[in-house]
Amino acid sequence: MKESLPGIHDIAKAHERIKTYINRTPVMTSSTINRIAHAEIFFKCENFQKVGAFKFRGACNAVFMLQENELKNGVTTHSSGNHAAALSLAAKLRGTKAYIVMPETAPEVKKKAVEEYGGEIIFCKPTLEARESMLEVVEKKTNATFIHPYDNYHVISGQGTAAKELLEEVPDLDIVIAPVGGGGLLSGTAIASKNLNRSALVYGAEPKAADDAYRSFKSKILLPSDNPVTIADGLRTSLGSLTFAIIIKNVDDIITVSEKGIIEAMRLIWERMKIIVEPSSAVPLGALLENMNVKGKRIGIILSGGNVELSKLPF
Amino acid sequence: MKESLPGIHDIAKAHERIKTYINRTPVMTSSTINRIAHAEIFFKCENFQKVGAFKFRGACNAVFMLQENELKNGVTTHSSGNHAAALSLAAKLRGTKAYIVMPETAPEVKKKAVEEYGGEIIFCKPTLEARESMLEVVEKKTNATFIHPYDNYHVISGQGTAAKELLEEVPDLDIVIAPVGGGGLLSGTAIASKNLNRSALVYGAEPKAADDAYRSFKSKILLPSDNPVTIADGLRTSLGSLTFAIIIKNVDDIITVSEKGIIEAMRLIWERMKIIVEPSSAVPLGALLENMNVKGKRIGIILSGGNVELSKLPF
Repeated sequence: MKESLPGIHDIAKAHERIKTYINRTPVMTSSTINRIAHAEIFFKCENFQKVGAFKFRGACNAVFMLQENELKNGVTTHSSGNHAAALSLAAKLRGTKAYIVMPETAPEVKKKAVEEYGGEIIFCKPTLEARESMLEVVEKKTNATFIHPYDNYHVISGQGTAAKELLEEVPDLDIVIAPVGGGGLLSGTAIASKNLNRSALVYGAEPKAADDAYRSFKSKILLPSDNPVTIADGLRTSLGSLTFAIIIKNVDDIITVSEKGIIEAMRLIWERMKIIVEPSSAVPLGALLENMNVKGKRIGIILSGGNVELSKLPF
Repeated sequence: MKESLPGIHDIAKAHERIKTYINRTPVMTSSTINRIAHAEIFFKCENFQKVGAFKFRGACNAVFMLQENELKNGVTTHSSGNHAAALSLAAKLRGTKAYIVMPETAPEVKKKAVEEYGGEIIFCKPTLEARESMLEVVEKKTNATFIHPYDNYHVISGQGTAAKELLEEVPDLDIVIAPVGGGGLLSGTAIASKNLNRSALVYGAEPKAADDAYRSFKSKILLPSDNPVTIADGLRTSLGSLTFAIIIKNVDDIITVSEKGIIEAMRLIWERMKIIVEPSSAVPLGALLENMNVKGKRIGIILSGGNVELSKLPF
């Protein structure tokens, strides 16, 4: 692992490395949402990415960076979310194994996704301690290489390729907004955006009910999240030391949004754009509509993913 | 109204006429659905069309065909569905009025859509007789020009532009499938497909629970539907004399699907493609998976629309 922070050069190299494996996702617009926001919004649709989320970009880059000797015993992570499926698919494409430590309470659909991509699940109790100690057991037993879901140089470089594609297609954006949970996507987005368009402002968007990144950003002290309760299940994690450093350096502000605002924005995207996004994806639009004055601006938003339980919708 | 049947020349002219107003919708694929179907399927995404359905193509063509003297008193129709919103928007774009006769029981979301596009709603009792007699009243009072939802030469020519775009993008299809309700979309699809690709087979797909087009096709006698109960709310209507004649002449077969098959196909499209389609749109894929052997074939499917009540989903 390098010590310094990733730069645009790393994102460009990541893009070269993964571009035959990822989907180049479309940028979509909605005249109704533009009218409501009094702005022009360009949505980068990572819900159409492989495994249904941007996470595949980072996992793919991290796995394809590895040398043969780091690969031969497989890769491992702990995740109950999109990173688990993303790492499983990346490992399969590289011809190696993925060992996924997952809480036994994880939703059935997430387990299925990992198995479908050939990942091997090792269950643990649903606490952070149990996850970490089980991961240690797996690492010792298998000698697999650990790929952190977000606090990893190459994962961050991979996530930055989404904003790179967005800015290649729509160069003259005033603002770019990405949701922030562990900070991998926001870190990559900020590095790509600030380097490809000097004048663009970069914002993170976070649920008010899980505002650890907001508090960390304002206080300049890395504050962990404390079992936050939010519908945006992808954004409950804390920042890592690497993502915190990148965000402090490259992000202009973090905007929060209420749970009601998240659900309303999600419904707006579903009804008007006819696309399926998960609650975390709706956080930037929700924050924009609830708490930002963007009149006349051109705004890029990363729609992070589309994996939702259809039988458990909030509307 | 011309007496003969529309041809590919009419569809080409319709396309020229409406192309600055419609969305050129994307063609999407899903490797998972291809694996399940053992075939290659190309989905023409009319859920991303203006007003959320292919209906805007036909309404737009019919309204923009009219002479000034036919336009000056506005246009009118009876519809509780997508044609109502489509005609309202087309009239607005042409600078005239739309009078929409709608059953008072129509869902709130449909009324809102018509009002949003500036259409004027005239309510009636929810029977076909009430709709038709109220339409007569409106026609007499306003002198507006009646635009039938599907049994109209220019509406059919407009609907055919979706298949034209699909075949321009993917010329070498073995089979093209469209859902069939009143038959406007299937008629236009069949004319376009048979003329642009001689060897393509064209199928209509219909709910088993509303199989009047199937029975009409097999018996060669136009049989009306009789209050069918199906989740595919866009496909409850009967064929018209014009659409029946076109379908008999140009369509190779009509395939039916169970209600369970429709819901399963709809869920598959939502979960795997991350796009929102209404039940009627899922009928072709449902029919294909339930009742067709298409191994190794290249198949085009028109996804007709994406207007659903999110609070009333079948899963």
